Amino acid sequence: MKIGFIGLGNMGAPMALNLLKAGHALSVFDLSAQAVQTLVDAGAQAAGSPKAAVTGAECVITMLPAAAHVRSVLGADDGILAGIAKGVVIIDSSTIDPATVKACAELAARHGNSFVDAPVSGGTGGAAAGTLTFMVGGSASAYEQVKPVLSAMGKNIVHCGDTGTGQVAKICNNLVLGISMAGVAEAMSLGEALGIDTKVLGSIINTSTGRCWSSDTYNPMPGVIATAPSSRGYTGGFGTDLMLKDLGLATDAARSVRQPVYLGALAQQLYQTVSTNGAGRLDFSAVIKLYRHDDGEEGNGGAR
Amino acid sequence: MKIGFIGLGNMGAPMALNLLKAGHALSVFDLSAQAVQTLVDAGAQAAGSPKAAVTGAECVITMLPAAAHVRSVLGADDGILAGIAKGVVIIDSSTIDPATVKACAELAARHGNSFVDAPVSGGTGGAAAGTLTFMVGGSASAYEQVKPVLSAMGKNIVHCGDTGTGQVAKICNNLVLGISMAGVAEAMSLGEALGIDTKVLGSIINTSTGRCWSSDTYNPMPGVIATAPSSRGYTGGFGTDLMLKDLGLATDAARSVRQPVYLGALAQQLYQTVSTNGAGRLDFSAVIKLYRHDDGEEGNGGAR
Amino acid sequence: MKIGFIGLGNMGAPMALNLLKAGHALSVFDLSAQAVQTLVDAGAQAAGSPKAAVTGAECVITMLPAAAHVRSVLGADDGILAGIAKGVVIIDSSTIDPATVKACAELAARHGNSFVDAPVSGGTGGAAAGTLTFMVGGSASAYEQVKPVLSAMGKNIVHCGDTGTGQVAKICNNLVLGISMAGVAEAMSLGEALGIDTKVLGSIINTSTGRCWSSDTYNPMPGVIATAPSSRGYTGGFGTDLMLKDLGLATDAARSVRQPVYLGALAQQLYQTVSTNGAGRLDFSAVIKLYRHDDGEEGNGGAR
Amino acid sequence: MKIGFIGLGNMGAPMALNLLKAGHALSVFDLSAQAVQTLVDAGAQAAGSPKAAVTGAECVITMLPAAAHVRSVLGADDGILAGIAKGVVIIDSSTIDPATVKACAELAARHGNSFVDAPVSGGTGGAAAGTLTFMVGGSASAYEQVKPVLSAMGKNIVHCGDTGTGQVAKICNNLVLGISMAGVAEAMSLGEALGIDTKVLGSIINTSTGRCWSSDTYNPMPGVIATAPSSRGYTGGFGTDLMLKDLGLATDAARSVRQPVYLGALAQQLYQTVSTNGAGRLDFSAVIKLYRHDDGEEGNGGAR
Repeated sequence: MKIGFIGLGNMGAPMALNLLKAGHALSVFDLSAQAVQTLVDAGAQAAGSPKAAVTGAECVITMLPAAAHVRSVLGADDGILAGIAKGVVIIDSSTIDPATVKACAELAARHGNSFVDAPVSGGTGGAAAGTLTFMVGGSASAYEQVKPVLSAMGKNIVHCGDTGTGQVAKICNNLVLGISMAGVAEAMSLGEALGIDTKVLGSIINTSTGRCWSSDTYNPMPGVIATAPSSRGYTGGFGTDLMLKDLGLATDAARSVRQPVYLGALAQQLYQTVSTNGAGRLDFSAVIKLYRHDDGEEGNGGAR
Repeated sequence: MKIGFIGLGNMGAPMALNLLKAGHALSVFDLSAQAVQTLVDAGAQAAGSPKAAVTGAECVITMLPAAAHVRSVLGADDGILAGIAKGVVIIDSSTIDPATVKACAELAARHGNSFVDAPVSGGTGGAAAGTLTFMVGGSASAYEQVKPVLSAMGKNIVHCGDTGTGQVAKICNNLVLGISMAGVAEAMSLGEALGIDTKVLGSIINTSTGRCWSSDTYNPMPGVIATAPSSRGYTGGFGTDLMLKDLGLATDAARSVRQPVYLGALAQQLYQTVSTNGAGRLDFSAVIKLYRHDDGEEGNGGAR
Repeated sequence: MKIGFIGLGNMGAPMALNLLKAGHALSVFDLSAQAVQTLVDAGAQAAGSPKAAVTGAECVITMLPAAAHVRSVLGADDGILAGIAKGVVIIDSSTIDPATVKACAELAARHGNSFVDAPVSGGTGGAAAGTLTFMVGGSASAYEQVKPVLSAMGKNIVHCGDTGTGQVAKICNNLVLGISMAGVAEAMSLGEALGIDTKVLGSIINTSTGRCWSSDTYNPMPGVIATAPSSRGYTGGFGTDLMLKDLGLATDAARSVRQPVYLGALAQQLYQTVSTNGAGRLDFSAVIKLYRHDDGEEGNGGAR
Repeated sequence: MKIGFIGLGNMGAPMALNLLKAGHALSVFDLSAQAVQTLVDAGAQAAGSPKAAVTGAECVITMLPAAAHVRSVLGADDGILAGIAKGVVIIDSSTIDPATVKACAELAARHGNSFVDAPVSGGTGGAAAGTLTFMVGGSASAYEQVKPVLSAMGKNIVHCGDTGTGQVAKICNNLVLGISMAGVAEAMSLGEALGIDTKVLGSIINTSTGRCWSSDTYNPMPGVIATAPSSRGYTGGFGTDLMLKDLGLATDAARSVRQPVYLGALAQQLYQTVSTNGAGRLDFSAVIKLYRHDDGEEGNGGAR
């Protein structure tokens, strides 16, 4: 299939590479010449604009940092809608607010195109391995249409409901994630301060009612889970600044529907503090640095 | 074995019954004559005081509502230490603060007895079925000594470390639990308000990074998990007032070691509001009533 | 002076009337024909668009609900910049975010106009009485230029610094206000529950270190301050939804400069709950309804 | 008048000295021999126990760190009730919980004594100058009885209501104080980050609806109020650890009456973080260190 792909960042580049590997023909666009070159070296064709990238494409995929980029790439004079053929579906895998998705979908519909939100989870590791989860918002037929393409980049392609619900699913999941990680950080730090062995505490929580991904897979206390970012200096993983962005989307979405989010709003301030302290690029489990009396590192940027 | 058992409430009574079933001889005490009679009918012997209950016992078990009761039952003129033989171990399965445990253990040590904290998880259902988890704080030898007795009442007997760490484990687990439940309540309510099908949202969270016991087993949104209290009007389960008590223990313990617990302290206020609204006896997942615009019930005692 | 005035809502209308009273000639625009007619009856001239309203004006004033309106009224095809003469100053008295102010000021500067932010405090009462406080952001010379015009509508015309600082001052003041009002609500409710006479408690706080405008002027407990909205059913005053908007501006501005605002974010959720409960039009001191066990009213929309 | 005075700490010593200056005869007790000597040098008589200090006294005053000390000094074998004559009033100026006050009052009543709670505000400066405010809880006649004695140590002697209401007044005032100080810290830091001159911002808030003691007298931003602790490195003033203690009393009291205190509980965590960071002895306005990007000091112990 001939695919126009726009946005070749940390996530977009490996996703595009997997499409090439699956035998698709790609026309790619990114502001970074270097990012484009990597894809060209792998067999993609470079395009000078989003418009050029989607001209003649049978499917269009965007993977961009924020809502403003999606709007711009879609509607600009040299944007997607200026070059796309009628009936071609646009898949946006960026993580943005549901309201922008709906606005983009309406705009696309006026040009005879469907716009499907398909944000991902799985991180750069999942993008490289082709094991991402895609949360797809759109009609049942649009879902059936995009599923084969997405399957070249991920292993779980979940239909969440109508347009925008892919973003809703991602935002709500990450709201739970951000809260539970900070909650585990509080509990593990409290246990440490009260004198229990943290590995023992971790194993008890992980077999009890406190069990959660933030504890049994990404436990923020070093040494509890050997493969977690906390056991390698909080490198790799899901960056604090990305969690902060997602909690911003969650609290904004909540405001738009007049919904209080007490713990979400407070968790947002905690990650904000971590980020302002200079640890925004560390895995978000570094939020535990706000709680531990002494985490054994110099210059950790923590609150203490 | 001859066991003195003090405290025959919702948890203590079925625990004591399981000891009888296992062939132990029980001498029991409780302020409620009715509670005592139930055990006597099952083969236990009634005692007129804690002192009388433990006289001649080879092991003593207490299951009481709060720290003040434990202190009193232990040290009063007609209390445990007035009647217990030297060397007999005292197992306290109440959920109380670690500092009281240490004080009690010191007091018991002066009388030649060891005092082991062994709080439980598993609720009244686990107590009846004999499938409780016991979190045991005490020396390795004390742990070996109490394990056979506890095995008649539970299926997981976990050694957490020295005296008091059983309580630390329970408090820390329930801190995570109280936070994650309220976090799931926020996310499920937000998703509902944003228009995603809540069953779909639940299944996405439960296979993603937001997964946790509060979502995949006790999801607070009615209809998501058929066996959860939320799907039967928030009856049964773990009462809001009990969660409130445990979060009180957690924030008090945190204060004692000068540890901030931001989300824990906020979650405590949320459950307090639920309780003050009149829903303290409902399962703690009823915290979602603070968030949902309309939960379809009359007189729900919720915030809206 | 010939003034173009755009936005004749609850605040804008009385402000414009005061300009007429002071002898200025007004050309006015609003989407509501009725609002325009009231001003025309008082001597203003109706204009069919912002462009028409500012054509020939020596000064332009806008008073609009939110940033999107200000952007649109300024830059639209029939907007201010399409009709204004070079060198004429634009005074925006709306409460909006500082970033939009800066963007608008840059846009205006490219057309040869200065754009001064001058948000107000004092409410509809102050607008009618001409006793508003204006917080002015702009150069010293711009401040001197706008001061005489603003003096017809207010009694305190404060220069806050460069462009945008008028909004910063307003946002920061209202951040303190929103927090302190909720704090007083907590303390007065706690005192009531603990059995102290609330008038006595109010008078002690008001002569001690807890004294603040939220306690000594607008005390949220009915009966403490006879002239406060709480003593007349929370009518009049500063609406909860307006406070909610301003706390939204504060938390958004904080995010833009990577600044945590713990109490501000939590207070925002509290006012959100009041608003969602149906009390958004009541004075913001109605936040006390979240705390009081029984406020003596039927159907109060409170949390209990 | 012959007065027994127990507790000669930072507050008690200058209070006792003022009683001596007013011509009263003092018999004093403290665990610190040095503290006792200072008072003896000034004319007081040393006593070997609380019992000895109150024997023959016409009035008894206690000024102790916490509830446990008050209970012990009152009821111990060599305590107040063992030596006091019937009918003599006991004035407790410690800051403790209202429940302990009531328990002490009942105990005293059984011995034929009235127990009046009279906590103070005004700090060590007010204690030295004799300008403290006393918040008195007790019957009207008890209030009339203690007023002349307290007038030798303070200038405002306020009757708050029945036994315990003096503590309620103090706790509620300090709850507002702790919240408003942290709120001002957020707003001043936000304003600073957004680029407004902090002196200008302070003066706007102080003449607007955000005005409060925490802003106009003790503003936490250095340089805004020349006489505030923030302008002298946060030395002197009201220590963070004392504010932390009082917020602990407030949240405990709230729990006892099933009252949520959202902002109070969060503020408590903020001051806890400051204290754990090592700044517990600094004035509580040092909470601003959690917010400011750079407060210009090395090793400030702040969150950044």
